[in-house]
Amino acid sequence: MKICTLAASLIVIGLTTGATASLANDEPIKPIQPPKSINIGMAELGKKLYFDPRLSKSGIMSCNSCHNLSMGGTDNIPTSVGDKWQQGPINAPTVLNSSLNVAQFWDGRAADLKAQAGGPIANPGEMAFTHTLAIGVLESIPQYVREFKVVFGKDKLDIDQVTLAIAEFEKTLVTPNSRFDQWLLGKADALTADEKAGYKLFKESGCVACHNGEAVGGNSFQKMGLVEPYKGNVPDGRSAVTGKDADRFNFKVPTLRNVEMTYPYFHDGAANTLTEAVDVMGRIQLGKKFTKDENAKVVAFLKTLTGDQPQFLLPILPPSSDKTPRPTPFSK
Amino acid sequence: MKICTLAASLIVIGLTTGATASLANDEPIKPIQPPKSINIGMAELGKKLYFDPRLSKSGIMSCNSCHNLSMGGTDNIPTSVGDKWQQGPINAPTVLNSSLNVAQFWDGRAADLKAQAGGPIANPGEMAFTHTLAIGVLESIPQYVREFKVVFGKDKLDIDQVTLAIAEFEKTLVTPNSRFDQWLLGKADALTADEKAGYKLFKESGCVACHNGEAVGGNSFQKMGLVEPYKGNVPDGRSAVTGKDADRFNFKVPTLRNVEMTYPYFHDGAANTLTEAVDVMGRIQLGKKFTKDENAKVVAFLKTLTGDQPQFLLPILPPSSDKTPRPTPFSK
Repeated sequence: MKICTLAASLIVIGLTTGATASLANDEPIKPIQPPKSINIGMAELGKKLYFDPRLSKSGIMSCNSCHNLSMGGTDNIPTSVGDKWQQGPINAPTVLNSSLNVAQFWDGRAADLKAQAGGPIANPGEMAFTHTLAIGVLESIPQYVREFKVVFGKDKLDIDQVTLAIAEFEKTLVTPNSRFDQWLLGKADALTADEKAGYKLFKESGCVACHNGEAVGGNSFQKMGLVEPYKGNVPDGRSAVTGKDADRFNFKVPTLRNVEMTYPYFHDGAANTLTEAVDVMGRIQLGKKFTKDENAKVVAFLKTLTGDQPQFLLPILPPSSDKTPRPTPFSK
Repeated sequence: MKICTLAASLIVIGLTTGATASLANDEPIKPIQPPKSINIGMAELGKKLYFDPRLSKSGIMSCNSCHNLSMGGTDNIPTSVGDKWQQGPINAPTVLNSSLNVAQFWDGRAADLKAQAGGPIANPGEMAFTHTLAIGVLESIPQYVREFKVVFGKDKLDIDQVTLAIAEFEKTLVTPNSRFDQWLLGKADALTADEKAGYKLFKESGCVACHNGEAVGGNSFQKMGLVEPYKGNVPDGRSAVTGKDADRFNFKVPTLRNVEMTYPYFHDGAANTLTEAVDVMGRIQLGKKFTKDENAKVVAFLKTLTGDQPQFLLPILPPSSDKTPRPTPFSK
């Protein structure tokens, strides 16, 4: 039943974005393509794991806690709440279209979705568990053991299978069919005059230099505060990964897909509104002060980037067995 | 699309439980009936509200946080985690089939689902918000304003509409078609010999005196520790509501529907397994020590009470507007 639903939704994606129009070829932003060669069984298993809070020490935090698929794949707060209400150091980026990113995390320290998925589980400030304990929990749940065996064909369950399955599910989380993509694909009346004017400004002002491609970002690292320093907390960013001083204050350019849903903005979540984010970006990255009218038009354009949100049945998780170690939300 | 899905699932419920067999009439447990006269538009709105963490001060807690519909409508921890990681005083009861309860909360202090729904939002130890602030958030979100107007036909949004909508959604959360119900409805081979023997023990030992009816419980208040005192923390319970000393240590008898999924057990969540719960209940409520074999049979019967879990598309929440007050997870 659930597999049919996922398969059906992939077919819908295929139908709506399969055709490529000539218009799109001339633009620096490309329509979102449906995911290719998805292993449906693995993605369905990954969906359960994505929603399973038993992968956290407390038993109440799942991937979906901070990358909430009801809310644009984010938590809509400046920085996330971790185990024991710890304050996270950086804004939780959206999981939507994250398969299109050049690397994962703001500093790109994970090469791909699989490498990312293991991070929060074992981060003491986030889910605060260990991979060994997480595997112990999953191995104690007969329905998971069977499902892993069907999907991976192995007798023993390991963290690589867990992160592979979560990554496979995440690959399905693309958002095609935004009004902007409809316009790119030839539907001339999909955008209003103001939205088109906003897109023109977005291109001519230079925003598109970094925010381009299928994800309208996500494909390069850039310095936060290129023209003017950012007035806020700026961690080292990319340089912490590369060790290069030139990479200080560099962050992965966030995708602007579904940006109306992924507030607040920037690595520190300091900008509450698109108006504010466009104003700050114009000034500190481009040395440009958008007028109120220009800003409104760019914002109008940005709101056309909201695509079809992933639609799927809420997964029902297999119950723990008597042998499943119980979560300890209040222990030290 | 979503409305169609809900409507379709209601039709399925109707098909599977609409027929009443003669067998069921002779038994103290009755098959779960489909919900009647559901207002689909209101239930769909209520589903969004049920999943919306913007009804909490922190912006990260929703009804679904503690009554998780992926996990039997509970959080599967002894007592819930509230705002700022506060430890809850009592085990979160399942929302599944809660429309069948005589009253809501362990002490029955809310007469119905509507009265219950407003409680956690404003409880400083839970979602820690106020009704006024919650309404302010919803009023700032244009898509919600429109949807409330369509459903309630009023110009102004209020907390009564919010709790009515959540309650209407919760009325749809019934779990028909368990193997036990199939057996009640005449499918003789739906249960194994051990499961039938477990049901016989459940009746003959007296469990059924309190755990009966459609929800296998939920329809009366009983003293925790009738024959022998309960070795654990026992709050006042029902007497705090009625003011009667005779009601001390009385609690609403929990439903046993889906009990395999709603661990840990009792008002304090102290029993991790069904084996333990059956043993303790036998001793302190009935003065009976089940043998290992008897206990295993009762547990086998209890596991036949898992019904079809509510299946619906994960709701997509309308985005906040620039005017929406932002959540403050880390403020005092």
